[in-house]
Amino acid sequence: MSKINAERLLDDLRRLSQFGANNPGVVRPAFSEADIEARNWLRIQYTKAGLDASIDGMGNVLGRSKKSGPALLIGSHSDSQPTGGWLDGALGVIYGLEIVRSLAEDPLTRGLAVDTVSWQDEESRFFSSLGCRSFCDQLPPGTLDGLCDKEGHPLEKALESAGLIDVPLFKLEQGRYLGYLEGHIEQGPQLELQQKKIGVVSSIVGVGGMVFSFKGIQNHAGTTMMKIRKDAATALFKLASRINEEFPKVAGIHSVWTMGRAIIHPGAPSIVPGAAELELQYRDASLEVLEAFEETAKNLMEEINVAGGATVESRASRVQIPPCEMDSNFKRHLSDAAEMHAPTLWELMPSGAFHDAGIVQRVIPCGMLFIPSIGGVSHDFSENSHDEDIVLGCQVMADAAASLLQEQAI
Amino acid sequence: MSKINAERLLDDLRRLSQFGANNPGVVRPAFSEADIEARNWLRIQYTKAGLDASIDGMGNVLGRSKKSGPALLIGSHSDSQPTGGWLDGALGVIYGLEIVRSLAEDPLTRGLAVDTVSWQDEESRFFSSLGCRSFCDQLPPGTLDGLCDKEGHPLEKALESAGLIDVPLFKLEQGRYLGYLEGHIEQGPQLELQQKKIGVVSSIVGVGGMVFSFKGIQNHAGTTMMKIRKDAATALFKLASRINEEFPKVAGIHSVWTMGRAIIHPGAPSIVPGAAELELQYRDASLEVLEAFEETAKNLMEEINVAGGATVESRASRVQIPPCEMDSNFKRHLSDAAEMHAPTLWELMPSGAFHDAGIVQRVIPCGMLFIPSIGGVSHDFSENSHDEDIVLGCQVMADAAASLLQEQAI
Repeated sequence: MSKINAERLLDDLRRLSQFGANNPGVVRPAFSEADIEARNWLRIQYTKAGLDASIDGMGNVLGRSKKSGPALLIGSHSDSQPTGGWLDGALGVIYGLEIVRSLAEDPLTRGLAVDTVSWQDEESRFFSSLGCRSFCDQLPPGTLDGLCDKEGHPLEKALESAGLIDVPLFKLEQGRYLGYLEGHIEQGPQLELQQKKIGVVSSIVGVGGMVFSFKGIQNHAGTTMMKIRKDAATALFKLASRINEEFPKVAGIHSVWTMGRAIIHPGAPSIVPGAAELELQYRDASLEVLEAFEETAKNLMEEINVAGGATVESRASRVQIPPCEMDSNFKRHLSDAAEMHAPTLWELMPSGAFHDAGIVQRVIPCGMLFIPSIGGVSHDFSENSHDEDIVLGCQVMADAAASLLQEQAI
Repeated sequence: MSKINAERLLDDLRRLSQFGANNPGVVRPAFSEADIEARNWLRIQYTKAGLDASIDGMGNVLGRSKKSGPALLIGSHSDSQPTGGWLDGALGVIYGLEIVRSLAEDPLTRGLAVDTVSWQDEESRFFSSLGCRSFCDQLPPGTLDGLCDKEGHPLEKALESAGLIDVPLFKLEQGRYLGYLEGHIEQGPQLELQQKKIGVVSSIVGVGGMVFSFKGIQNHAGTTMMKIRKDAATALFKLASRINEEFPKVAGIHSVWTMGRAIIHPGAPSIVPGAAELELQYRDASLEVLEAFEETAKNLMEEINVAGGATVESRASRVQIPPCEMDSNFKRHLSDAAEMHAPTLWELMPSGAFHDAGIVQRVIPCGMLFIPSIGGVSHDFSENSHDEDIVLGCQVMADAAASLLQEQAI
């Protein structure tokens, strides 16, 4: 068991948070000046750790081990939300760096091959997990054609400013990897509420959703009798309430659903609304539960459509992600290491948020580890975790990495 | 019984619709060039009809009868919605003009005194029923100070462009008026659905309303478990649905309520909403019903607040108008004339929309008459009524005007 260097780990995390710093958070969206500076700093740290390090044409930073034998890839992303926290992504990137260093310092593990990575644009400035998808050949066809961010800024220009236009892309080297490990903050309150220190990710939940379009008849709110109204808002309120009544009956224990977007047209207090739109998103690790949600929502739409008021149609939401189970052997190694360092203080849990590992698992085995987020806060400047939890998570992952590689070597 | 001239009535209505014409509707908001041209044309028609006609410093056009004895004031407004129909307001204005002419042509009624009026800005470009409120001294204190329209254009500038800056204001002459009569399109579908030709307005309904503010906790839609969420949208959907369930239990037969404005913050499908706002408006002719609505809504808020999710507070809406009963003698004269010309084809009905008569009734007795709106459509270019209904309504009002004045003279 190689002991990680807690001080070095925390120092490097704090150093990385200075790129795009907006204390206590960071502003380091993909391809921003701060992001590219951070990636160059990472490349240098990877090199100092003994890796062959470089940045590819999508902005991914990859550090390749010079050791022989099957390798583990360890990392996460160093780009941030527009107003993000200092640990989201950064934690897993520095875990990779520290694990390479600590394994190399221990005679028993110094022969093990660990590559490190910082994926580009996990946070969807241009496209969700752009860098990781590029590496794993998982970009939907045509994704890059004319791709722009929400402000209409083209990816092409962002690559040009970053000096990445003629830089080659890294692609997954077939047969090199035993798999991929990613450490991350939980971004939710579950571990903290249950007083656990480590979450071993069982699966990354799938995401489904529907956009409901309501069609009524716009009219004068004073002169249109209730019995002849076709009020789009009334239908929306009814469907949303029925969803909140019926979904618990088909939900799993970790299911979540959200109706975070609702638009009423024309939106004046004196006008009976003629149109409305509602977006429903649901997440669960089980495809069956996702399908039950969809079916329930469609049955409830039927209730609205036979009621005689405004009518409703639906289309699938833009984001549809199937659930992704983490590799069972990786889960076992992470669980064993967690039990050793934090007996009874860890649990298997699904990840409600999406992560690069959800893409990488399509091509090589993956494992993920969570540490508690203070107050469950994330995607916010105030995001934080306790130092001792940060250190513990890295030690657990270092042990799991070593045991996975050693098992392979036997 | 003086017979009105149907052709002259329809011709003048069509002529008035040419000011700001956007066939088949009109664009003639208060103080627009088209509005002021229309008012000058009206002044000339009033003069030709034998009245002392002029425009006051607020844009009201008044035609004063030269006859002695108590007078009736008859009219409505000639300003329109930004995209309005050709009859909303214009109908009642031309009714006044035609009634003056037809009474003057009949030896039995030529001695009766009828003044005509076209009020300014009933449609609230600057302030709801601005001209009529000015005439009746019913402007809330300070209303005119720095008053601007929704685009920030000051009333002062609008008056200046219209050449009205140093023009005196008309004020209600104490003792002159027996009362005020206003003809209007229904702006709703009730008369048409019940195959009636004339509505005698029993009252102008009161308007109440509340703005609900929901306060939850904004969070990640993937990582925040359902049981700990405080979702502002969930609370909004629930309250709105409960209002739609409970209001029918305390409503009157003509009650209406509308939730036409709802805002969810931040309004993203992947974020548990932390705040939301919902506006409720309700109308009824009975103060008791309005109070029951308010009480019911407050009880339902309490349901939300004890449920443990997001919480809700309320404030009164900007628009709060008490119900206004029309004068009983005016209603009787209108009903008698309606029964004579359209036996069984008329009914007493509340007005769900607000009208200048709702202001004037505060200072002198008022009566109002409705004719059917085709399809119930109003505040739209396509607003229309059948010619025969337009003519019938004017004849009924002419008879009611004559009988009211003759009764007084006895």
